[in-house]
Amino acid sequence: MIRSIKTFLTLAAVGLLGLAIAGPAYAAVTEETAFVFNSFSFLVHGFLVMWMAAGFAMLEAGLVRTKNTATICLKNIALYSLAGIMYYLIGYHLMYTNVDGGWIGSFSILYNPSDAELALLNAEEATDELIGAVTANSYASMSDWFFQMVFVATAASIVSGTLAERIKVWPFLIFVVVLTGIIYPIQGSWVWGGGFLAERGFSDFAGSTLVHSVGGWAALVGAIILGPRKGKYGPDGRVNPMPGANLPLATLGTFVLWFGWFGFNGGSQLALGSALDVSAMAIVYVNTNLAAAGGVVAAMLMTQVIYKKIDLTMALNGAIAGLVSITAGPDLQYHLLAIIVGAIGGVLVVLAIPLLDKLKIDDVVGAISAHLVAGIWGTLAVGIFGSGSFFTQLYGIVVIGIYTVIASGIVWFALKALMGIRVSDEEEETGLDRSELGLEAYPEFGRGSQTV
Amino acid sequence: MIRSIKTFLTLAAVGLLGLAIAGPAYAAVTEETAFVFNSFSFLVHGFLVMWMAAGFAMLEAGLVRTKNTATICLKNIALYSLAGIMYYLIGYHLMYTNVDGGWIGSFSILYNPSDAELALLNAEEATDELIGAVTANSYASMSDWFFQMVFVATAASIVSGTLAERIKVWPFLIFVVVLTGIIYPIQGSWVWGGGFLAERGFSDFAGSTLVHSVGGWAALVGAIILGPRKGKYGPDGRVNPMPGANLPLATLGTFVLWFGWFGFNGGSQLALGSALDVSAMAIVYVNTNLAAAGGVVAAMLMTQVIYKKIDLTMALNGAIAGLVSITAGPDLQYHLLAIIVGAIGGVLVVLAIPLLDKLKIDDVVGAISAHLVAGIWGTLAVGIFGSGSFFTQLYGIVVIGIYTVIASGIVWFALKALMGIRVSDEEEETGLDRSELGLEAYPEFGRGSQTV
Amino acid sequence: MIRSIKTFLTLAAVGLLGLAIAGPAYAAVTEETAFVFNSFSFLVHGFLVMWMAAGFAMLEAGLVRTKNTATICLKNIALYSLAGIMYYLIGYHLMYTNVDGGWIGSFSILYNPSDAELALLNAEEATDELIGAVTANSYASMSDWFFQMVFVATAASIVSGTLAERIKVWPFLIFVVVLTGIIYPIQGSWVWGGGFLAERGFSDFAGSTLVHSVGGWAALVGAIILGPRKGKYGPDGRVNPMPGANLPLATLGTFVLWFGWFGFNGGSQLALGSALDVSAMAIVYVNTNLAAAGGVVAAMLMTQVIYKKIDLTMALNGAIAGLVSITAGPDLQYHLLAIIVGAIGGVLVVLAIPLLDKLKIDDVVGAISAHLVAGIWGTLAVGIFGSGSFFTQLYGIVVIGIYTVIASGIVWFALKALMGIRVSDEEEETGLDRSELGLEAYPEFGRGSQTV
Repeated sequence: MIRSIKTFLTLAAVGLLGLAIAGPAYAAVTEETAFVFNSFSFLVHGFLVMWMAAGFAMLEAGLVRTKNTATICLKNIALYSLAGIMYYLIGYHLMYTNVDGGWIGSFSILYNPSDAELALLNAEEATDELIGAVTANSYASMSDWFFQMVFVATAASIVSGTLAERIKVWPFLIFVVVLTGIIYPIQGSWVWGGGFLAERGFSDFAGSTLVHSVGGWAALVGAIILGPRKGKYGPDGRVNPMPGANLPLATLGTFVLWFGWFGFNGGSQLALGSALDVSAMAIVYVNTNLAAAGGVVAAMLMTQVIYKKIDLTMALNGAIAGLVSITAGPDLQYHLLAIIVGAIGGVLVVLAIPLLDKLKIDDVVGAISAHLVAGIWGTLAVGIFGSGSFFTQLYGIVVIGIYTVIASGIVWFALKALMGIRVSDEEEETGLDRSELGLEAYPEFGRGSQTV
Repeated sequence: MIRSIKTFLTLAAVGLLGLAIAGPAYAAVTEETAFVFNSFSFLVHGFLVMWMAAGFAMLEAGLVRTKNTATICLKNIALYSLAGIMYYLIGYHLMYTNVDGGWIGSFSILYNPSDAELALLNAEEATDELIGAVTANSYASMSDWFFQMVFVATAASIVSGTLAERIKVWPFLIFVVVLTGIIYPIQGSWVWGGGFLAERGFSDFAGSTLVHSVGGWAALVGAIILGPRKGKYGPDGRVNPMPGANLPLATLGTFVLWFGWFGFNGGSQLALGSALDVSAMAIVYVNTNLAAAGGVVAAMLMTQVIYKKIDLTMALNGAIAGLVSITAGPDLQYHLLAIIVGAIGGVLVVLAIPLLDKLKIDDVVGAISAHLVAGIWGTLAVGIFGSGSFFTQLYGIVVIGIYTVIASGIVWFALKALMGIRVSDEEEETGLDRSELGLEAYPEFGRGSQTV
Repeated sequence: MIRSIKTFLTLAAVGLLGLAIAGPAYAAVTEETAFVFNSFSFLVHGFLVMWMAAGFAMLEAGLVRTKNTATICLKNIALYSLAGIMYYLIGYHLMYTNVDGGWIGSFSILYNPSDAELALLNAEEATDELIGAVTANSYASMSDWFFQMVFVATAASIVSGTLAERIKVWPFLIFVVVLTGIIYPIQGSWVWGGGFLAERGFSDFAGSTLVHSVGGWAALVGAIILGPRKGKYGPDGRVNPMPGANLPLATLGTFVLWFGWFGFNGGSQLALGSALDVSAMAIVYVNTNLAAAGGVVAAMLMTQVIYKKIDLTMALNGAIAGLVSITAGPDLQYHLLAIIVGAIGGVLVVLAIPLLDKLKIDDVVGAISAHLVAGIWGTLAVGIFGSGSFFTQLYGIVVIGIYTVIASGIVWFALKALMGIRVSDEEEETGLDRSELGLEAYPEFGRGSQTV
């Protein structure tokens, strides 16, 4: 690539004497510089993943009907808020503190800056010793917390879409509290916390299983317990379409997710401060993009062949499925494979969505297909194209699947028994916006307003 | 956190001889590297704050009625444009050049790259001397300008929401010109420019007072002088709801603001190039997120208790209030405090919005409550939980409040006298989109189109 | 600027002995650090440009009528996907491999990480030698690919808006395949690939001509061959307005483009790892912002003067025209010039849009005016205000223009002959969403739903 002009002239300034003494090592990234790079990577990629919360909100707001739109917006901003608070209160410690090859972390509460960081921040003078104590950790503790936190929120976001249009607000939010504070962190500790699955060799780079399938399993169990929307499935087995009210918003949401996914996968390199890390990170970015592209194209072709029309929502779900599929192993060193992995994800989502409808499992936005099905595929793909073992990957999928189904099933049943999780038929008919929130998402628009 | 693999192998390459000679200093961030980090931090965090302009636009577009939607979009893109131009023409110099403990900067015009930078950029060769002259400043001059500029625009964005649906476009834009070119920079010089309030010890990390309250005061004065929308307050004291036309858009706007606020507060660390700075910045990110989360949850609980329904727009304003509240002191080293500070902000906004309605001050989007009230609270909170003195904080709030009220009052009255600031009753009834812009925001949607 | 506290204390830790030996060079950015900075800049600025794909999608979705909204969303996500795949398959090599002053690169397929990078990534140990082989390239190969790829997609995005509401989906996508895989890369090789136009001294910093005009030429030829929308131009020469259905969405799209343009122009500095580069990059950011602001203000004033109303869509196009105008030379060292360059762009777009209508060239979103006309102006401006030669600039514009017109004309005619490019009159009347996709973008909103 020629496009630049005068760069690195600076480097010419490197003194010959310095080079002579320090040797090639002189040109390396220094320890404190690496610390800054690594921490900043967590912050930048963390804000990208945070932005995915907006993506889910828009995707879901676009795919529900007008009468339930404000409610899904509320659920999304509330779940993101609760995820952060719960992960601060107990989640992070459960996932990352003292796991040591086991199956759960520490029951400590509140996760705050390290003592070394506080000592440096509050010192009169930043001595080498104080700095060294901080940089020994290779990244700022709270930058890591921030990055991990936004992943928890993603898992919760997946659930909200599936269960839209019929679940009550408060029971849903209580489920989110348990999911983000307890269910997610415990299984997270098994792999990313260095627990037994990590020791076994299970590999999940950025969370096809740990984030997406877990959210998908929780959504699946919830959907079964909650039941389908009224009128979705006719007595004769007919599936009644309930089209989303605002497809440009759903498109925007998908673009937001794609954009944020560079943070999701790229940041999961977990370090930036070396030529090796940034080269690997660039590879991750490219695979992430190509897998999503593969998912879109595959889903488009599939719907053209099957339905003789290109379905926009399938194309959007193809993008998401492609992204989920590559998430377990976005470090493939031959990028054509990423297109293939993503395209298979796109094919799967087009097949899975009608299949779930046949099973009368009502997934409003297609999240189970895009996150759980593609998440399983992506995790297995590491055992096919990547460095993992197929059977270890399968083992991890099954273990985490069983755990999440049981844990979330218990919570859903408890909530159902204690307070009920579903709005009344009348409220469902009226729409959750008016019945649960007492307002309308689009009070002046068309049919929405005519029902007032 | 275990999730990484082979990082810092690079560091092992550090030659022993080099270490032996340079000692621990060898591992530090070098001066030029720190310069790059600091400047890049301004750019990255600056673009995040720039994005907040879109957030305000969407929030406000979602909370006005359809007939005024295009106008509020226009005002937002125009105010962002004017803010940048005015800050380049005179604002930055007024705020930052030669303040020296005083109350105003320099009356110079145009802010351009430093001589040292121009010398380096135009040199045949980048000599050590030229580089050293540039890095002596610790960040690229225009990176700082960019970062400061987007803050000015934020102050102006606050005003547009409050005064929506009845103010004429041009008088509003002229107010923006004065606010961003003169009113804002002068008070900014008192604190961030190193003026008399800074010397007094007043502390406002990222602008709870300097940006949010100033915008809020200007909006408050404008709202009083402009008067409420026709029909908003019945003769019997009844408050007529005028619900926003597009709540998913308002939700999107809130998410954009939250996302951009990592730039607003994180970038206000003003440096990235050391372990100390990036550790502090990570703390700021986490507090920013948790305060917003606290604001959402508090506002939701409040509306549930008071109104027996969760109000989406209150939850959105709770997020913003939480963010504004933490902005004066996002460097709290114990994150639980951030949740508390944000939650109190969320409570205040839920109380303030109906209170303003009682006073017949018509704030279309709740900006006075979310930015002024929470801004005052956040600034005081630094005197309670942070390192500031409560009375100094109070002093600064009062001084800047009085100044902004008087200055913006003069401008509003002058505009009213000279050209009128309010559209006619008939134009208000028709809507500003058709009367001021000659078009419609949603020509094909429901009621909006039926009025054609 | 005073606002910071304790920074660079770290730097005080630099050992005197080290300084004594290494001299000022010690303070420079090291080679590996520069490599990380440069690569990370490509990734960060790349994701910003990727986000512009969402901006185009929203802008176009807001400016078409409801009945064609879902289709334009589909085209946008599909074109972004195809652009990435084609650029991976053949585009990048055609543009950047072995151009050597010629007019085309290599016909190799698939662009994957460099051998040096693979060697480092797969080594047992990251030796100095392996690292040095990687850092010799000054940036990670795939980070550059990612950054260049998002530019290709931008060119394709421009075409979709102009041809909306009447072009069939598949022929459009096939055109995108050829444009992004062949047409764009070949002309790109002439300048950025180091081909004959680069040798001639033609200067286009970030692509006023190479990206925006090329997209604009392809759109212009397509619009002429495709013909205007039914009913757009009356037999009496009357132009029938067909207003966009969702102006807040168009506003959002414009803000997204503005935001993403910091990546487009800022990242085109192509390096970050030195004081010189980051200072230059900051200048680019500021010029980018001020040119857009100038475009908005100029377009507003123009429409006020000409039409006695401020036209929102013209203001939005003014922003885009300002951005396109500065893209060829955003490195101006006196920022007032950027306001002027952008403002002239804003004036041009207000004049060009009705002119095209007079010529009965139907450009649904104004893309030809904003991208082609402003792109030509911006490229010439480098010869007026910047370091380029006016005649060389003109020469490059003409050469690339002729090439793109011929190349895209051949493809459009071939597609027209082979499969037809335009939907039937009846399908156009019904809308592409129902005829091509079998769904509706806003099934519950107003007129859109009433046509069902």
